[in-house]
Amino acid sequence: MVLEFGWGPFFARRLSQAGAYSQSMNSGGHELPLFPKPGNRMKRARARHKPCALKELEVSVSELGLGYESDEIVLFRYCSGTCETAVRNYDLSLKNMRLKKKIKKEKVRARPCCRPLAYDDDVSFLDTYNRYYTVNELSAKECGCV
Amino acid sequence: MVLEFGWGPFFARRLSQAGAYSQSMNSGGHELPLFPKPGNRMKRARARHKPCALKELEVSVSELGLGYESDEIVLFRYCSGTCETAVRNYDLSLKNMRLKKKIKKEKVRARPCCRPLAYDDDVSFLDTYNRYYTVNELSAKECGCV
Repeated sequence: MVLEFGWGPFFARRLSQAGAYSQSMNSGGHELPLFPKPGNRMKRARARHKPCALKELEVSVSELGLGYESDEIVLFRYCSGTCETAVRNYDLSLKNMRLKKKIKKEKVRARPCCRPLAYDDDVSFLDTYNRYYTVNELSAKECGCV
Repeated sequence: MVLEFGWGPFFARRLSQAGAYSQSMNSGGHELPLFPKPGNRMKRARARHKPCALKELEVSVSELGLGYESDEIVLFRYCSGTCETAVRNYDLSLKNMRLKKKIKKEKVRARPCCRPLAYDDDVSFLDTYNRYYTVNELSAKECGCV
C-alpha cells in the first residue's frame, strides 16, 4: 500500500503516480458474489449486514470538504459495516439499565461502534495557491467494533 | 477501588462487604456545582453536554437483565457523555462523502463514540439455585471518544 511507504507526512500527490494503488482498489473483497442478480431490497439488506471493515475511496482534497481548495488526489480510507456480532455483556446490561430507568437523561451508547482503531499518517498537499498544508487523522488505518 | 484488588475473577458478593467502595461512589465528580438551582431545561442541556466519562451504578445481578437470577450486588461501570470535542478530520470528511453521495447505502459512523476502551475483570456470582457463573466484559474500566 502506498500509504505505508513514507516516513513522516504522506504527500497527497504521490497517489496519482502510484501503480500499486489501483490493485488494492480492486481487491477490496466487498463486491457481491456471482449469484443471480438480486433485487434492490435484497441488495440493501446485504449492505446493511456487512461486518465492520476498512473501505477506500479516491477523492480530491477539495472534495473532503475540510475547506481546502486542491485538485490533488488522496486515498480516503474509512470504516463501514455493522457490529452485530460484537455485542458484549456490557451492552446488554446497559440497554437494560436504560429500559429500567436506572439511567436517565444521559447520553450512553449501548451498541458497539464500527470505528477506526488507528489512523493513517498525516496527509500533506499543496492547494491551488501553492500553499502547503498537513492534515492529521484524516484516513483510517484499521477498523474495529469498539 | 475494590474492583482493582483481586487477581482473576471478581466476586460480586464482595461488593456489599467493601467499605472503601461507597467513598468512590461519592467522589465521582459528576454532580452539578453549587449554583442557584437551575430549571429542568437547563439541567437537561447540561446533561447532554457532559463530556464522555466513566460512571457507576450499584445493581443486583438480576437487574442486569442477562438472564441470571441472583440478589448479589455488582458495581456496574459504564461510559456516558458526549464526544463533541473529539471530532477528527476523518469524521468531517466522512460526513462530506455522505452528503456528496460518494458513499451510499453503507453503514458508516461519522461521529466519535463514547465507549469503553477497556473492561473490568470477569465478574463471578452464585445464582439463587447456588449455581456458579462468570460473566466477562460486563463493566467498563476506562472510557474514551473512539
